[in-house]
Amino acid sequence: MTAGTATARIRVGLLGCGTVGADFARLLVDRRAAVEDVTGISLELVRIAVRDPRKPRPEALDAELFTGDAYDVVKADDVDLVVELIGGTSAAGELVTTALEAGKPVVTANKELIAKAGPDLFAAADRAGVDLFFEAAAVAAVPILRPLRESLLAEDVTRVVGIVNGTSNFMLTRMTADGLGFDEALAKAQELGYAEPDASADVDGADAASKLAILASLAFNRAVVADDVGREGIVGLDREDFELAARFGYDIKLLAVAERFPDGHAIGAQVFPALIGRDHPLASVRDSFNAVFLTTSAAGELMFYGHGAGPRPSASAILGDVTGAADQLLRGTHRRIPVGSPARLRPARDLVHSYYVRADVEEAPGVLSEVTGVFARHGVSIRTVDQDGSESRARIVFLTFPAPEHALDDALEELRGLSRVRGVGRVLRIHK
Amino acid sequence: MTAGTATARIRVGLLGCGTVGADFARLLVDRRAAVEDVTGISLELVRIAVRDPRKPRPEALDAELFTGDAYDVVKADDVDLVVELIGGTSAAGELVTTALEAGKPVVTANKELIAKAGPDLFAAADRAGVDLFFEAAAVAAVPILRPLRESLLAEDVTRVVGIVNGTSNFMLTRMTADGLGFDEALAKAQELGYAEPDASADVDGADAASKLAILASLAFNRAVVADDVGREGIVGLDREDFELAARFGYDIKLLAVAERFPDGHAIGAQVFPALIGRDHPLASVRDSFNAVFLTTSAAGELMFYGHGAGPRPSASAILGDVTGAADQLLRGTHRRIPVGSPARLRPARDLVHSYYVRADVEEAPGVLSEVTGVFARHGVSIRTVDQDGSESRARIVFLTFPAPEHALDDALEELRGLSRVRGVGRVLRIHK
Repeated sequence: MTAGTATARIRVGLLGCGTVGADFARLLVDRRAAVEDVTGISLELVRIAVRDPRKPRPEALDAELFTGDAYDVVKADDVDLVVELIGGTSAAGELVTTALEAGKPVVTANKELIAKAGPDLFAAADRAGVDLFFEAAAVAAVPILRPLRESLLAEDVTRVVGIVNGTSNFMLTRMTADGLGFDEALAKAQELGYAEPDASADVDGADAASKLAILASLAFNRAVVADDVGREGIVGLDREDFELAARFGYDIKLLAVAERFPDGHAIGAQVFPALIGRDHPLASVRDSFNAVFLTTSAAGELMFYGHGAGPRPSASAILGDVTGAADQLLRGTHRRIPVGSPARLRPARDLVHSYYVRADVEEAPGVLSEVTGVFARHGVSIRTVDQDGSESRARIVFLTFPAPEHALDDALEELRGLSRVRGVGRVLRIHK
Repeated sequence: MTAGTATARIRVGLLGCGTVGADFARLLVDRRAAVEDVTGISLELVRIAVRDPRKPRPEALDAELFTGDAYDVVKADDVDLVVELIGGTSAAGELVTTALEAGKPVVTANKELIAKAGPDLFAAADRAGVDLFFEAAAVAAVPILRPLRESLLAEDVTRVVGIVNGTSNFMLTRMTADGLGFDEALAKAQELGYAEPDASADVDGADAASKLAILASLAFNRAVVADDVGREGIVGLDREDFELAARFGYDIKLLAVAERFPDGHAIGAQVFPALIGRDHPLASVRDSFNAVFLTTSAAGELMFYGHGAGPRPSASAILGDVTGAADQLLRGTHRRIPVGSPARLRPARDLVHSYYVRADVEEAPGVLSEVTGVFARHGVSIRTVDQDGSESRARIVFLTFPAPEHALDDALEELRGLSRVRGVGRVLRIHK
C-alpha cells in the first residue's frame, strides 16, 4: 500500500476474545502472509486482554499472549495498535480513550459505544493524531463507512435506508415466505443461531437505531447519536399484515431511515417496520442479510449488501480496518472523521410518510364514509381502500398519500374513539 | 481529511469536455465549497484541453480555461492533478503516462485504456510516486475499486460476478418484463438514450469484458486484460428463451464472471448471458442499473449496486477520486495498486458450468433417448428435461448438472449432426 517500503511490523493488542475476538485473531494469523505480500505490513498479535486469562482459548493462540489487565494492552510500549472487542460503553470507552491518548490507533466493532459517544471519541482521535476505525460497528462485513468517508466524500447524500438487523430480517423473511407468526419466527431464529436468547435489542429496533446513528453521522457529516433515532420494532406484526402487504405488492422490512432535509440541514432518523415495493432492491435482501441503500445527488441510488453480523464477517471488517490503520500509522498520518456539530433533528411528528392502516369496523351503512371522513378532517388523503367483510363485521385497509405523522396520529386517535370502530391494527409506514 | 491542515489548493487540469467532462466540471464547481468544508482542500479547475477550443461550452466554464493543446495541461507547472476523459487508448495512454511522469496524479474514466494497458500505467504511477485512480472506469458511480483496494485488501476474494453493462441490462429487463424481442428492446434503449446508435460494444459483451478485466485485476491482485476475457453477447436471444427461463424460475442477465481457482491462482474470466435464479440479489438489478457481487472467504457474499454509466454518476466517481488523489498528493504519499504479475488464465473449455440447452427435434419414438444418450456419452448429466411437442415436431429443453465447456461443446456438435435434430437454440449457462 505505502510505496516502496520494506516490510514494517505493526504490533496489535486485542481487547476481548469472545466469538468475534477469537475469529479475528484466527483470521489475522491466517491472512498475515497475504496481507504482508500485498501491503508490506506484517501484522503481529502481541497481547490479548481477557477477563479470565486462565480460561482455555483457541489452540492457534499462544497462551502467553493473554493478560487479565486491559490497561496493560492500551498503555503498553510494545503495542502499536489496539482492537477493542469487549463491548459495553463505560469500560470500553475509557480503554479506547486511553489507547488514543497513548497515540495508538484504535479499531472497534462496538456499535453501542460509537453510537453513544462517537463524537467525543472522534475528537480524541483527532487530538491524538491517530485513526479510530469502526467499520464492523455499522453493517459488519459490508464496506459502507469507508466508502462514505472516502469514495463519496464529495457527494451530497440525502437519504440512507438500511436493513441493518439480520435477526429481524431473518424473522420477517420467514413470516413472509413461510407464513410464520412472530413467536414461531423468533424461535426459528434462535434455533438457527441468528438470535440470542434475549433478542429484545434486535426486535425492538435498538440495535438498528445504533447502526443508523453511525451511518447517518458519516453520511451527513453531522453527529447523530442513538438517542436521536425514533424507533418501533417488529413486535406485534401479525400474519394478516403480511398477507395484506403481499396483496398490495409489498414486502414488510424493518427499515432504518435517515434523511437530510434541504432547510438548514435538519435530519430525520427513524427505525420502523415498513411496506416496501417488491421491485425495490431492498426487498431482495432476505434472511439474515443486510443492506444500505443511499440516495445521493450525483451518483443517484447506491446499495451495499452483505452480512451485517456474525463473527467471521465482523472479523473481516476488523481486519480491513486494522490493515488500513496500520498503513496510516506507518505513514504518520490519519483521517479525521468529518463529523461536525450535532445534527439538528426534525421531530418524528413532522416527518412525512405514506401509511398502511388496518381497522376492524361494524358492517353498517355509513361506516366507510364516517371513517374516511376522519382521515379527510386531518388532511390525510386516502390512496387505496380495501374492504373485506362478512355479516356484521368488516376489515378495512387504507393506504394513504404522504402526510405528517402528527396528522396521522390525530386521525388515529379520533378513529379509535368511534363507536363503530372495533379496533385499529398496527400502523405501518410505506417506503416510497 | 488530512488532520490539522489549513485550506490547501489543488489545481486540476481536465482532458476532454464531452458529456462526462462537462458534467464533471460542473459538479466540481457545485461541490467545491462542500468539499473544502469537509476536507480542507480547495479544488480549482485551471485548464481544460479540448479538440476545438472555439466551440461553445457550458456557461459555468470560463472560456479562458480552454486550450487546444493537451500537452499544455499534462506538462503545465500550474496543474497539480490531471483528469483524463478523452477516451481511446493511444493518445490517452501517452497523455496519462506523460502526466504521471511529470509527477501529477491522474484520475481517468477510460475503461478501454485501463483494461488494455493498466499494468504498465500502474507501474508508471508507482515509479513516479503518484496516484492513478479510475473508479469511474469500472462501474461508474458504484464505489467498488476503492473498497477492493482498501476495505477488502485483507480479504480473500474468490469470485466476482457483475452486471456491468447498463444498456444490455435495460434490454434484458424489457425482454423479460414486456416480452420485447431483441430488436424492439434495442430500439427502446436507443429511444430512451440508454444506447448509442452503435450499441455493438454493449450487446456483444466487449464493454463488460473491459470492466471485468479491471474488476478481476483488483479483486485477485493479478493483471487481467480485456483480451483475457472470453465473451458472448446478448445477440440471438429470443422471446422463447425468456419464457422458458421464467418457467424454470430464472431471469436472463448478461453476467461478467471472474473466478480464482485454488490451484496456483488460475483465473477464469468470461462474459455471457446466463440464467440466474429469481431469488438471487443480482436478479433484482433491473433496467440500466449495475451491480457487482463478490464472494469472499471471511466476509462471505457482498454486493455493490448503482448506476454503472451516465455523465452525472461518472462525474460523481471522478470527483471522489480527485478528492482522494488530492488528499494523497498533499500528504506526499500515494497508494500502490497491488496488481502483480499477469494472471494465469484457465481456458474457457476447462471452465465448469451448468447449461440450458434448447433443441427442436422430430417427434418420433426414441428421439429423447437418442438425444439424452449424446449428453451421457460426453459426461454431461441432465438435471431437468422439459418436452413440449405437437404432431411431428417437439421442443426439448435440458438443464444440466455442472460440466466442463469442452464436454458440452462435444455433446452439442454430435447433437447437431443427428438427423432427427432440427436445430439447437442458443445455449445459456446457469449461474449457480
